This record gives sequence, C-alpha cells and structure tokens, in this order.
Amino acid sequence: MLNKKLGAGAAFVAGLCAVASAVSAQDAEETFITAKQEQTAKRLIDKGLHDDTAWTLLESLTTEIGPRMAGSDAEARARDWGVQKLKRLGFKNVRIETFELTHWSRISERAEIVSPFPQALVIATLGHSPSTPAGGVTGEVVRFETLAALETSDADLSGKIIFVDEPMTRTQDGSGYGAAVKKRSRATIIAAEKGAVVALIRSVGTDSHRNPHTGGAVRGGAALAPVPTAALSNPDADQLARALKLAKEPVRVLVDIQTEFNQSATSGNVIGEIPGKSDELIVVGGHLDSWDLGTGAIDDGAGIAITVAAAKLVGDLKGKPARTIRVIMWGAEETGLWGAKAYAKAHEEELSLHVLAAESDFGAARIWKFQTRFGDAMLAKAKPFQRLLHPLGVGAGNNQASGGPDVSPLRAAGVPVISLYQDGSDYFDLHHTPDDTLDKVDPSAVQQNVAAWAATIYLASEMQGGFRDGAD
Amino acid sequence: MLNKKLGAGAAFVAGLCAVASAVSAQDAEETFITAKQEQTAKRLIDKGLHDDTAWTLLESLTTEIGPRMAGSDAEARARDWGVQKLKRLGFKNVRIETFELTHWSRISERAEIVSPFPQALVIATLGHSPSTPAGGVTGEVVRFETLAALETSDADLSGKIIFVDEPMTRTQDGSGYGAAVKKRSRATIIAAEKGAVVALIRSVGTDSHRNPHTGGAVRGGAALAPVPTAALSNPDADQLARALKLAKEPVRVLVDIQTEFNQSATSGNVIGEIPGKSDELIVVGGHLDSWDLGTGAIDDGAGIAITVAAAKLVGDLKGKPARTIRVIMWGAEETGLWGAKAYAKAHEEELSLHVLAAESDFGAARIWKFQTRFGDAMLAKAKPFQRLLHPLGVGAGNNQASGGPDVSPLRAAGVPVISLYQDGSDYFDLHHTPDDTLDKVDPSAVQQNVAAWAATIYLASEMQGGFRDGAD
Repeated sequence: MLNKKLGAGAAFVAGLCAVASAVSAQDAEETFITAKQEQTAKRLIDKGLHDDTAWTLLESLTTEIGPRMAGSDAEARARDWGVQKLKRLGFKNVRIETFELTHWSRISERAEIVSPFPQALVIATLGHSPSTPAGGVTGEVVRFETLAALETSDADLSGKIIFVDEPMTRTQDGSGYGAAVKKRSRATIIAAEKGAVVALIRSVGTDSHRNPHTGGAVRGGAALAPVPTAALSNPDADQLARALKLAKEPVRVLVDIQTEFNQSATSGNVIGEIPGKSDELIVVGGHLDSWDLGTGAIDDGAGIAITVAAAKLVGDLKGKPARTIRVIMWGAEETGLWGAKAYAKAHEEELSLHVLAAESDFGAARIWKFQTRFGDAMLAKAKPFQRLLHPLGVGAGNNQASGGPDVSPLRAAGVPVISLYQDGSDYFDLHHTPDDTLDKVDPSAVQQNVAAWAATIYLASEMQGGFRDGAD
Repeated sequence: MLNKKLGAGAAFVAGLCAVASAVSAQDAEETFITAKQEQTAKRLIDKGLHDDTAWTLLESLTTEIGPRMAGSDAEARARDWGVQKLKRLGFKNVRIETFELTHWSRISERAEIVSPFPQALVIATLGHSPSTPAGGVTGEVVRFETLAALETSDADLSGKIIFVDEPMTRTQDGSGYGAAVKKRSRATIIAAEKGAVVALIRSVGTDSHRNPHTGGAVRGGAALAPVPTAALSNPDADQLARALKLAKEPVRVLVDIQTEFNQSATSGNVIGEIPGKSDELIVVGGHLDSWDLGTGAIDDGAGIAITVAAAKLVGDLKGKPARTIRVIMWGAEETGLWGAKAYAKAHEEELSLHVLAAESDFGAARIWKFQTRFGDAMLAKAKPFQRLLHPLGVGAGNNQASGGPDVSPLRAAGVPVISLYQDGSDYFDLHHTPDDTLDKVDPSAVQQNVAAWAATIYLASEMQGGFRDGAD
C-alpha cells in the first residue's frame, strides 16, 4: 500500500519503481526458460482459452460410454474409446496396458423405516460392501453423531444397525473431505467389531439432494467390507436423525443390499505419447473409470479431457518437445488405485526417466492454486510456472503438492509432482453421486484448465534440468 | 419521484405532504375495520413472526408420516395425525369427511439406453400411467423439441418411444409451469394417437438434479393414461438428447414400468374449526396428500402447517371470532382434486355461508404478493389487507387470484378467494421430486407466512360485510 501522503505524481513514480524492481527480480531469478519459450507458453495459454477439444472429449466420454465402473464392460468400452481418441488426435505409441483386479458391483439396494414411521430411505451401497441376506435385514438403529463417538462407545450393538451421522464441511480446497471420509471405511470395521449387522453413514458430501454419495468402504479393494455398508443421502440422514428424535420407541430399519464380487477381472491404463527429443518423461492424465451412479463428468472425465487436450496443444507445436509427454488414462482408480499401482510396477525400470508427473482429478472448476513437490534446491524452478499461470487467476501454493491419487506411487518413488488445484467449493456436492453429469461442467472453466495445463506441460518439458534435488 | 430541481428543504416538505395525503386517503378509504382490530392484526403479525407451531407441525408430518400418496395407507395415517394435531391445538368439530377415489400407485420403473450407448436413465413414472408388458418394452426414440412439434408431426411413430424435450422457464410467480406442464398430460394422448408405445417427457421442473418430477399424466384421475408415460430427470433428458445427437444409428431405449390401479379406495378431508359468533365461514387450509417420491414438505405440508398455525393464533385471541374459521386438510389433491370436489359437493347447501376461501399450496418461501378475487364493488376491502401485509414485504396484485387448487370448486361456485403468493423461484426445483424434503424449508420464511396468514384470516373474519358483490 502506498503512503497516502504521496501525491498522485509521486504515486505514479513509486509504481514505476515497483514494476522495475519486479522485472529485475525476475531477471535474477530465472535462467530456466528463454524469452522465446515464455512467448510460446503464453501462446499456448491463449490457445487453451479457446480450446474445444476438451469439451468435445468430455461430452463424448460421458455420453457414449456413461458410467464406467472399474473392471466393468463399460470401462473396457471406455478404454477402446480412449485408444481411438488418442490416435485420432495424433498421439503416438497408443496402447492399453492391462492388469487384473477384483471387481465389485452393485446389484440392488433398498432401505426403509419399518417402525414407527414406515417410509423409504434413499441409500447407495458403498464399494466392496457384502450383501445382506436375501430380503434384507431389519434392526434397531443406533445413531452416533461422529465416528469418534462410535469408536469410543461401549453400547451393546449386537444385532443393531449403526448410523454414523457425521457431516462434512464445505471448503474451497476440499480439506473437509479428509476428516469426513474416514467413516466410509472405519464405520463398517467398528460395526463388525461391536456385533452390528449393518453400517449406515451420512453421505460424505456437502449437498442436500436425495442422491447419496457412494465410494469405497474398504481401503485397497481386494477384500469385502466386514458388514453390509451404505450411505444415506444427506436429506435421508436428516430424516433418520429426526425420526430417532421424535420416536417414542426404537426406530427399526430394513436394509436389503445385494452385491457381486469377482476375484478376477481385467482393467487397463490407456497410454499415448508425444515423443520428445529425449526419453525423459512428463506424465499427465486423469482416471478413466468412474463410480457407477453418475457419468463421471467431474470425476474424472474432466481430468482426461483437460490433460489430453492440453497435451495435444503442446504436440501441435512445431518440432518435438524436449521431453516425451506421456498421457495416461488410468484404469480402476476408484476401487483401489489399481491402475496407478500397475503403472508404477510395470514402469519400475524407467522411473528415473520420470521428470514430472501430475494428474487432474478434482473436477472441472477453475484452477486457483499451483503447487509443487520439487527437491528443495529446485524450488526456484516453480517461479516461471507461477508467473505464467498468475494471469489465469492461479496463485502460488506450497511445496507439498499431492500430484493426484494416480501419481501417488510415483511420488512415493521420488518422482517430482505438481498439482493444479481446482476450486473444490462445489465438488463434494456431486462427487460419487448420480449427479456427476456433464451439465454440471462450465465449458469456460474447462478452457481455463486446458490453458493452465498446456503451459505447465510445455514448461515442464522444455525447462533446463529436472525438479529433483541433484537433477541439474 | 420528486422533481430533481427542488432543494433539500422543499423535498422534505413535499415528503410530508405525500405522507399527509396518504393518511387522509386511508381514512377516506376504509371504514371496514376499527383501529382496535388493526392493532390486533398487527399483534398477530408479530406473534406469527415468532411462531414455532408451524415448524413443529411440518417437522412432525414430514417425519412421522413422510410420503402420503392419495388413497394410500400413509394418507390414512396422515388423516389420523391431522385429527390428533387439530384437537391438541384446540380446534373444535374436528372430523374426517371421507370420500372414494381411484387409487393409482407406482410399483417399479426402469429405463436404459440399449444401443448404441448402453447405460441407465433415471425416470419417474407419471401418475396414472399404465404398466408396460412385464420386462419392459424397447423401441427407437424419436425426440421432439416441443409439445407443439409432436402435435404437428406427421412422422410414423408406430412402435416408437416418443421423447418430448421441452424445457421449463424459471419465474418468480411460477408462470413457467402452465406452459411446461401441458406435455405431462398431452404427450401420452398424442403418443397413443400416433401409435407410439411409450411417452417420455423432460421433467416439468427447473433443477438440474437426477431426481425426476412426477405428476399426473391424466387430468382428473379416474382413468389410466393411454400409454406408459414417464419423466426423465433434466440431466437424463440432456443425456438422451446428446445420445441422439452423437449416435450414428437409431437410439433404442428400454422402458419397464409397473403400476397398480384400483377402482376404489378411501381418502378424506380433515376439518377443524374455530367457532365464530356467526355461521359464516372463512375457509383456509392446504392439502394433506403428497406425491410418493418426497416427503411433501413444500407440497404441501407447509400449506397445512402454515394455515393451521395461523388459524390457531387467531383462535387464541380473547373471545370468539366474528365468523367461524374452518381449517381444511384436503385429501387427494394431487391425483385429481378429489378432496376439493368432495368438499364442495358435501357442503353445497352451505356454500352461501362461505365468505372467503384460500389455500396455501405453493411451497414455503416468503409471500410476496397478495391477490383477491372479490366482487368488483368490494375491491376497496382489499386495501386493509394490503396495508397490513406490506411491512412483511407483500405487494398488492390484481383481482384475479386463483385461491389455490382445492378452493377452485368453491371459486367456481362464486365464493370469493384470496391468494398469498409465495416466491416460486425455486419451487419447481423441488416440486414432485424426491427432493421435496424438510431441509429445503427456511423456518423464518415459514414464520413470515404464518404472520401474513394470521392477519389475513383475522381481517377476513372480522371485516364488516362480505366480499361478494351485493354482500353488504
């Protein structure tokens, strides 16, 4: 803030000085990219802001394939779709790298208050829930305000249906999710330990529609959850809580869940490349599978569409990029990071060639924060990214980027990652629900994403040296 | 607007004059209520704004009964609930006036795109739809942008599934509904005429959630619709339209609808009274039944709760009201105004005693407009209502009030009606969907409603003479 006592003329001069000082700081800071590269990155941003490839891909994937559960026929059709699209867009070395997984699927689900206030409740079975006996199981509901209250309870829960009613907090960065999602895998375990027959949870989500949020009830995905487990939509959780408040007798609920679990099914990662001048790799992508209730527009069709369209813009530049840009449509993310683990294993020998990795898997809203996980000595290399992304409304974050779930095995193996965080304020209104559909996506926000990713991929490919300590 | 050339002093004087002139106009206008009555009405408004009876009733009805389809067991439980609540609140002559109706109910519904993009679609069968053959019927989808396009089409629709994709416009006064709802009853008729096997329509609603809007597919309700008929949620209508746009071959859809239709079932109107000094009647209420998908919070639990709570506030005043205040919880509104017609018939002999009638049946948002349908010579009697409601944010409308669906037979028989129109901007996001639940209701808006209704009921009861031409 300028000193208010300065006149207008002095303020103007002070302003000029501030600009001059910023420019000289920039000169001192960066020798990582050339002025010409900077101009190219700006041109990519402009192209991204007018891109329609991402929208066309997203419309095609969500419409022509729709829901595509890990290990399902629909996911297989999505892989064929991915191969066809990558080839048509000019990517090279397009292939599917298959892997095996255990395949869980929903058959049917039904819940109702039996007494004293008979009425249906809307639930979604959680991934890897076992079935109830045919026709369902009826039990008295015991409500816990929080997961912690269930964990520490010494109530007798034999034969009961537990109901963990803990709500989720809405935040821009999605930080409410970490706390709220714990109940999704923990409730079923504690329910089993304490003799309960079914675990119900309030949806892990921030909306108030009768579309429950599904999601995995187990971490990993190779085994079934201990007891049948489902999420009530938020309004249904409200309703059950009110029924318990108003009832003068126990509230009894019927839950009938039927699921299927197959020890072996096939999934795969779809991979395409823009070959570079070197074998070094910049890995970007999203995950191709979705939960079964929606059409996976924000989770994660958008991630696929944005990164493919952005990589294509870089590929359309004259000449080869310095490094090879590898786009991955990971398979079977939702049910246990199967594709991520399979990729890291299959490419173990070339992990040292992975200069940078990043996934777009947090929806389709505008990117507002750029984060890195670079070697400490390489942090200055974040500056050109930050400066170029700033006009897109993207601020600089810390050096603790996650990179996205499907690059977590790479990150664990020492590969530097970046995150282009989208605004998550509304993400958990839709996440894992039937409402994850194309109409929720803003085409201009997708273009902002493509612009940011195109510039990022280009800089990552061209920048002198890598991002690990000792890389340069 | 004051002349801008006047100085501040002149403006102040002009302002004073305007106030003085308004006061004298008021004095001249109204000899219909006394200053004391006016004070009482203001006190009722203040009490209404602090009322919690309406919220408690609404919470109880939507939780303890939940969905309550016309002619169902749940609607019968709702009648018992109504009797109990009215008695407990001190109403007199509490009774159920039963009537017979044909009872339609939903058993199951399922739709999916069979080819070329296999995936499920979310539909809600419309009221009085017949069943498809067991296992469903599959046909090629033919889309019409509007109902008019279907009406005028000369395409061969034999064996086809027609899809009327006409959207609805969002408005504050709900005026988009009249145009959009036509397809709900017309599409099935034209489908049958042109040989189609199923009629699908875009939901009559303004939201973008995968909760379709049900509603009657026939007017009246004594017969089944000509062909199986269902509404797609708005996102599913988008999806089907996109599938038709992207497909290079016909889009085939399977629709499996199972319903039940019984020629005779029982419903009833629940009635309670605050006996007045005369037999003349002020009739207010809402309808007790709801569609089966939601818990009928805005349609029309709120109408019941608001009018009962408001009447109770009037009943709590010292001494009897001048006229008898009759509260009616109409039965079976949604499937054909069965309760409204039964009431008008059963009370035919005393229709001349009905001084004024009004229903609250447009949700639970703030009231913004007061309308009348008084005899032309009685229009001045609207002024005291308008003046008292104005501080609540309620403006004056015209003399073409509908009064609400359940008073339409009374209106047709010459009974004056009023409408307290709620803001309908969001009403058709929820109307007839699973999302019509208590969490969508703003308790302070309910209090504003109770305040407005309490003052209105009181004035209607106490005002000298009636509202028909020649009444006084």
